[in-house]
Parts: sequence; structure tokens; C-alpha cells
Amino acid sequence: MEPVLFYGVPHGCSFGSIVALEWLGQPYRLHRIDMMAKRSGTFAKVNPLGQTPAMITSDGGTLTESLAILHNIAARGLDKGLGFVQGSKEFDQLNWTLSYLHTSLHSDLGYGWNAFKLDDSDTLGRDMLRKMAREKAAKDYAFLQGVLDNSEWLAGDSKTVADAYFIGIARWGEDLGLFDIAKEFPGIHRHMAKLEADPAVIFAHAIEDEAPATSSGGFLGHSTLQDLDVRLAA
Amino acid sequence: MEPVLFYGVPHGCSFGSIVALEWLGQPYRLHRIDMMAKRSGTFAKVNPLGQTPAMITSDGGTLTESLAILHNIAARGLDKGLGFVQGSKEFDQLNWTLSYLHTSLHSDLGYGWNAFKLDDSDTLGRDMLRKMAREKAAKDYAFLQGVLDNSEWLAGDSKTVADAYFIGIARWGEDLGLFDIAKEFPGIHRHMAKLEADPAVIFAHAIEDEAPATSSGGFLGHSTLQDLDVRLAA
Repeated sequence: MEPVLFYGVPHGCSFGSIVALEWLGQPYRLHRIDMMAKRSGTFAKVNPLGQTPAMITSDGGTLTESLAILHNIAARGLDKGLGFVQGSKEFDQLNWTLSYLHTSLHSDLGYGWNAFKLDDSDTLGRDMLRKMAREKAAKDYAFLQGVLDNSEWLAGDSKTVADAYFIGIARWGEDLGLFDIAKEFPGIHRHMAKLEADPAVIFAHAIEDEAPATSSGGFLGHSTLQDLDVRLAA
Repeated sequence: MEPVLFYGVPHGCSFGSIVALEWLGQPYRLHRIDMMAKRSGTFAKVNPLGQTPAMITSDGGTLTESLAILHNIAARGLDKGLGFVQGSKEFDQLNWTLSYLHTSLHSDLGYGWNAFKLDDSDTLGRDMLRKMAREKAAKDYAFLQGVLDNSEWLAGDSKTVADAYFIGIARWGEDLGLFDIAKEFPGIHRHMAKLEADPAVIFAHAIEDEAPATSSGGFLGHSTLQDLDVRLAA
């Protein structure tokens, strides 16, 4: 049966998994998780940690963690160039890129998100975490910009799941009010702008925004909680 | 030519890559990086970011990031069960585990390491980061302990690169003085103790400690900077 991806709003890193699923072109469904609201018991069965992305795979199993889901999609999309054959030099390069994006940009901007978890009154703590996020992520954007100076795509010669992951998290620097990416990192901005014009990215934004969304892939619609309970009970 | 792994001391997460290389049983060399000292120009060619682990691969390329290096080793060790065939359910599970270890334990204890980067006088900042590290990592240890309650190894039915990565980073909770793992997480302690008895782990400790080290794999010795300059110029 077609997989179901649980994506988080606002602006979850699950955005990249939606983009990758669109590029894959095989049937899938989505289920929306409001990260600010209480999660359903159904979702707790899929991911006890309450994080997105999460996936019910085609064989009825569950899978969480962006990198694991992107590897799953890449393995199904080798013929489309979304990933590379295990053991190849390009497989190494894709793994480097996914890991670097996660270790660096995702984790470092995470200091900025964690600032919001402190008490409002803890302005010293908030300021320190935001300063750390900015200092650390500035190095990451600069390094990635260097990669993009020499290459049209983040890994290999065409778009892969690494570009999908990138477009979901690169925006966080501006979401957090820490960076003016167009001004500070024009090479990053250029890559983001190229991806923003991609139909899969336009679709993923429309999904996040609950606007009319046109799939250029195999999107079959949203699964309801009732649908999911039936799937998970099977 | 045999790969060369650059490992960091003290207690780098590169420890796991040494363990995985031992388990692989194929020829390799090591090069030691003192993370507290100025890095060599040679190492800067391998990893401009100055982090370990880093690797010169058998074809003379360079590869960094624990997860990418562990995927490289796993792909070469499918026959030994160190990893799983791309596209399989077990491949998903291994990717989940590696990603979770990295997203959770590695990143969350990272808040504790970052505390040391603040000025000595910033006791408020240090205390806050240590508190965050403890709160966040406690959830990670507990969740991983739950995984180990149901399984002898972290992914699949035998030891994989995930267990190698785990044993290199699980110790950080005590290194940072944040946890008494044996008392607070006996299931984590049990898995650590089982791995500590493994010849590859005993070897990796001896390497870190510059003590006499007996390889049960394909360790051919340390590469000198001169060796590396020749390799990199080739």
C-alpha cells in the first residue's frame, strides 16, 4: 500500500521529505501534524517521540528521522537519480551531504529554535542561544555556499534527496530572523531560488499553507485519522 | 590503496569509525589528531573544517562526517553484517538508528561540549547549556534503553556500524559529568559493557590512549604526515 508521510507545520524539516516524494513520482499520501498542538494517539503509535517527519512505509512498518526517510526514498528512486547505488563514490558524497546538512545547518539553527523553549523572562539565555545559532550557522551557510560554487547541485550532477532536505531547512535562518540570506550568502540564495521554482517545492509550500496544491508526482491526498487507524491496526 | 582514518583525541566520535574498521577486517591505517592542538596543513587538505573522523578512501578521495564514513564501511561490510542492502527493511532500521544517535545523543550532549567554549566567567551560560544537555540527553538515553530492552543490538540481529557509533558517543554523558549511566540507565550500561569487552573496542581505547594495541582486524599502523603528503599529492 502507498506510504503515508506525516509532515509538521509550521516549517518542519519534513518539507524536504514531501519534495523528495514528489520527485520520486510514486503513489503516497500525507498526514498533517500541527507541531504547536497536542499530538493524536494515532501519531504517537507512529512516532512516540512526537517528531516529524514520520512515515508509514508501504509494508505497514513505521520509519522516522529525516535522514532515514530520505534514504528510503532515495533507494526507491535510484533510476531517477534521487540517490546512488550503495558502495559507489556518489553514495559517499550524498551521505556526506545529508550528514553535513544535518550536523551543521539543522543542529546549529536548532540552538535558535531552542531559544524559544526558554522562559520569556530569560532574555540572557535566549540571546546567548541566538548568538550561538548565528555564529555556528554562518559558518555552515558559508561552507555550503563553497560547495555550490563548484557544483550545480549539492551531491552529484542532478537534484537528489540532499537538495530536497536543504530547501526545507535552509529557510530557517530567515525564519529565526538571524540572517538576510540573499544579502549575506548569495550562492545559497541562488540555490534556494532555483529550488523554489521547482514544481515539487511549490507543491510542498501549498501543502504547508493549506492552499490549492498541484502534485506533479503521485500524491493521492491526505489520510484521515480514521484511515490511519485502519492501516495501523492491519 | 588502504584507507586512512583520521581520529580525534580525546574521546572523539571517530572512535566508532575505528571500531567499525576493525570489525570490517580489511587493511587500513590511522592518523592521530589532537583536537586541542593546532591542526596540520596536511589535515586541512583532508578536512578544511578540522573535524574528525575524516578518511582518505581507497581511491584517494576524501570523506568526512561519521555517518558518511560509517555508511562507507557498512557498504564494504555487507557480508559481515555491518550494514544492510540498500532498499531493505533492515537498511531503513540501520539508517534510523544512525540518524537518531546523531540527532539525539550526539547533538544533545553537544550542548554540554559547547558549554566549554564559553568564557570561564560565563557561569550562567555554562550552567544553562549543561542543564539543557542533561535534560535533552536523558530522554535520548531512556529512549535508546527502550530499544535495547527489545533487542540484543541497536539495528538488526547482530552488531552493526550503529553499535560502533554508539560506543564512541554514549560515554560522553559521563565524560561531561552529567550522568551516572550505570545507575540511571542500566540497560545502556549493559550494552556499553558488552561492547567494551569486544576486541575492536579494546583496541580503539588502546589507540586513543597510546597504549600497546592489538588489532583483530586489518590495522597496518599509523600513517606519518610524510606518508599522507605523498598520498594526497598522488
